[in-house]
Amino acid sequence: ISVKDGKGLQELLHELHFADVAEILEELNSDDATYLIKLLESEITSEALMELDDDVREKILSRLSPKEIAEELQEMDTDDAADIVAELDDEIQQEVIEKIEDDLLAADIVELLNYDEDTAGALMAKELVKVKETWTVAGCVREMRRQAKNVTRVHSIYVTDKDGKLKGRLSLKDLLTAPEKAHISEVYIPKVDYVTVNTENEEVARIMHKYDLEAIPVIDEEGVLLGRITIDDIMDFIKDEAEKDYQMAAGISGDVEADDSIWQLTRARLPWLVLGLFGGLGSVYIMQGFEEALTQYPILFFFTPLIAAMAGNVGVQSSAIIVQGLANDNVKGSLFNRLIKEVGLALINGLALGLLVILFGTIVGQDQLVSITIAVSMLSVIIVAALVGTFVPIVLDKRGIDPAIATGPFITTSNDIFGIFLFFWISKIILHF
Amino acid sequence: ISVKDGKGLQELLHELHFADVAEILEELNSDDATYLIKLLESEITSEALMELDDDVREKILSRLSPKEIAEELQEMDTDDAADIVAELDDEIQQEVIEKIEDDLLAADIVELLNYDEDTAGALMAKELVKVKETWTVAGCVREMRRQAKNVTRVHSIYVTDKDGKLKGRLSLKDLLTAPEKAHISEVYIPKVDYVTVNTENEEVARIMHKYDLEAIPVIDEEGVLLGRITIDDIMDFIKDEAEKDYQMAAGISGDVEADDSIWQLTRARLPWLVLGLFGGLGSVYIMQGFEEALTQYPILFFFTPLIAAMAGNVGVQSSAIIVQGLANDNVKGSLFNRLIKEVGLALINGLALGLLVILFGTIVGQDQLVSITIAVSMLSVIIVAALVGTFVPIVLDKRGIDPAIATGPFITTSNDIFGIFLFFWISKIILHF
Repeated sequence: ISVKDGKGLQELLHELHFADVAEILEELNSDDATYLIKLLESEITSEALMELDDDVREKILSRLSPKEIAEELQEMDTDDAADIVAELDDEIQQEVIEKIEDDLLAADIVELLNYDEDTAGALMAKELVKVKETWTVAGCVREMRRQAKNVTRVHSIYVTDKDGKLKGRLSLKDLLTAPEKAHISEVYIPKVDYVTVNTENEEVARIMHKYDLEAIPVIDEEGVLLGRITIDDIMDFIKDEAEKDYQMAAGISGDVEADDSIWQLTRARLPWLVLGLFGGLGSVYIMQGFEEALTQYPILFFFTPLIAAMAGNVGVQSSAIIVQGLANDNVKGSLFNRLIKEVGLALINGLALGLLVILFGTIVGQDQLVSITIAVSMLSVIIVAALVGTFVPIVLDKRGIDPAIATGPFITTSNDIFGIFLFFWISKIILHF
Repeated sequence: ISVKDGKGLQELLHELHFADVAEILEELNSDDATYLIKLLESEITSEALMELDDDVREKILSRLSPKEIAEELQEMDTDDAADIVAELDDEIQQEVIEKIEDDLLAADIVELLNYDEDTAGALMAKELVKVKETWTVAGCVREMRRQAKNVTRVHSIYVTDKDGKLKGRLSLKDLLTAPEKAHISEVYIPKVDYVTVNTENEEVARIMHKYDLEAIPVIDEEGVLLGRITIDDIMDFIKDEAEKDYQMAAGISGDVEADDSIWQLTRARLPWLVLGLFGGLGSVYIMQGFEEALTQYPILFFFTPLIAAMAGNVGVQSSAIIVQGLANDNVKGSLFNRLIKEVGLALINGLALGLLVILFGTIVGQDQLVSITIAVSMLSVIIVAALVGTFVPIVLDKRGIDPAIATGPFITTSNDIFGIFLFFWISKIILHF
């Protein structure tokens, strides 16, 4: 199709949903994709642009003039437009904003750009339907029809006083069922959840999820209604967070995808492997310190990978549960109780696994004392690993560091070292080498 | 407060949002919680019940009579009511359904219970606003007011033909702006995304996310409109899936939480540790096979935890990227290309890490040949681990098994064994022991 049959393409793609157009764009090389974007009306392409992968979008935008970008922005919601502008280089940002014909939109974008990236201010859209409490229902419907043109989806109608301060909300349903002459002040719902522009994204997501909200109004410190956040933005945020946590647990930093370039993937993965390498070299150093065991009990060295694996696995399990609990806000009770519980759990698991080790030792005819030594030190290693796995994320969280970093290579590596040291130390005490 | 001051409590809690009531219920013991549920109006408690943790809800429900449960159900949306009934024991299910006064609701619940747990049918609610294409706008508004009473939130109005088959949709906004006398057939939007009752939940989530939908209609095979799925149900589903994947990667099966009992946690965690244990015993066996190296090159045994850690980390990284890519449907290109890319990535990482090992060897004055041996075998181990980490999830996915199971202990354990074997085997070839 890329023999530049502009007309035909235009007709073909006009029928498609923007999300499908986005998929087609991702399959094309940047030249063809840019050609398509220029060809189609910005009404479709602006939505499709938003759906694109960041990397692809960046490439396409770099081939468009500031004027062309400005045209796309005019078709977008303010929050999306602001996101796109934020991705551009500083100089181009200025040019693009100047090229936007709609002064109000330009002002909105500049406002949104000024908020901190992780706050409700940066997440919100300026588009919303708001009415004053003094209006009548009929007047309100008239005004709403006018406002609703700019708002893709009306979730709630927000009610403000004459200074623009948020007073309550009104659903379309209520409006439909209210008598025409009633004043808004008589029919609106004064109870309304809201967040301020400085509320953190995570808190916004928590509130919206807890109260099952589909949109939430955003106000400034004085209570003036500034914008609203809709559930789809929050869903994207939740998905991204979950993926980031998952990657972090697997030792991948940054937000990479299977289709990113080898260099991007290396940058995301190599640092964690280097951390693991240093951990491994640490273990080498520890074992050299117990070298005298080599002659009498070489079997201990065969068991080190097992001990390290157990320490790592238990640590990851404990930390994953805590990290998830912290994210969902359901880690209750004191740190002390939590640790007691983990110790109990580790005891049960450790005893069960220790018995298996002794059983294995008996079957292969291993020295009984060696089997017991291995079982006892494994039990201790499991308890310590569980404690570290529980303690570290909680402490990180209390200090305001994302506890997700504690799952994965970080905890595995430190538990490997701890575990191996503990193993040889306890063995030395029991076996006197 | 639990001195049974019924009136006072009633007034106090009446002011609260149901999500807050739910939080209070979770803090109480089951007796007090049941007391509260009985005390409050089912309008509040039914919503609060839905927000509760499964375990807590189960305990409370077991203390309520079938009649009391039926009363709670009557205040719920059909999808929530069906979920609750599904959680009950079979005999009580029957009794509760018989006690429901609203026959229509009882029939809806029975219908919803019949769908497969993982399909759109089980996820959908029967509540929706539907209008016939032959109606006028004015008639439609009248009818809507009636229907809307049962629907908590009106997302879209669905338009059907006279046989109840889905024809299109209409937004409240469109309805507000349409002339009163127009027929629905002139104003509705004939393009509408939908799913059938047999569509899998994952597919529903994908479609709703891709097209940014807040509700999607569900039809049967003949195209008859049966219900709708709203975004909040999908959000719960996505959150649950992400949490399950995260736990699976950490070696925790089942859906447990930090606050579950020690026994539940043991059941979720111990099996994976046992798997790890068997893996570790496998390594012991392998190393015994290379025992002759003990006298000449004991240093190799100090390096096994490092090799195992590398094999595990790389495997987890590769599999996590693939598992996530598969979930998001963005693993493109052939399996062969994917493997080539992973090998490239592994080569870069492996070479970088190998050089570090040689550097370390030089610093501590280690035998040059031994350092090179370790570096070379580590490079091979990393490549193999990356291949296994990529290959296994893809194969599992092709066979219809959840690839998420491949990340975590499963891949770590098998890569540990592979890695250690490869390490000693390559060392044996180079060092001739």
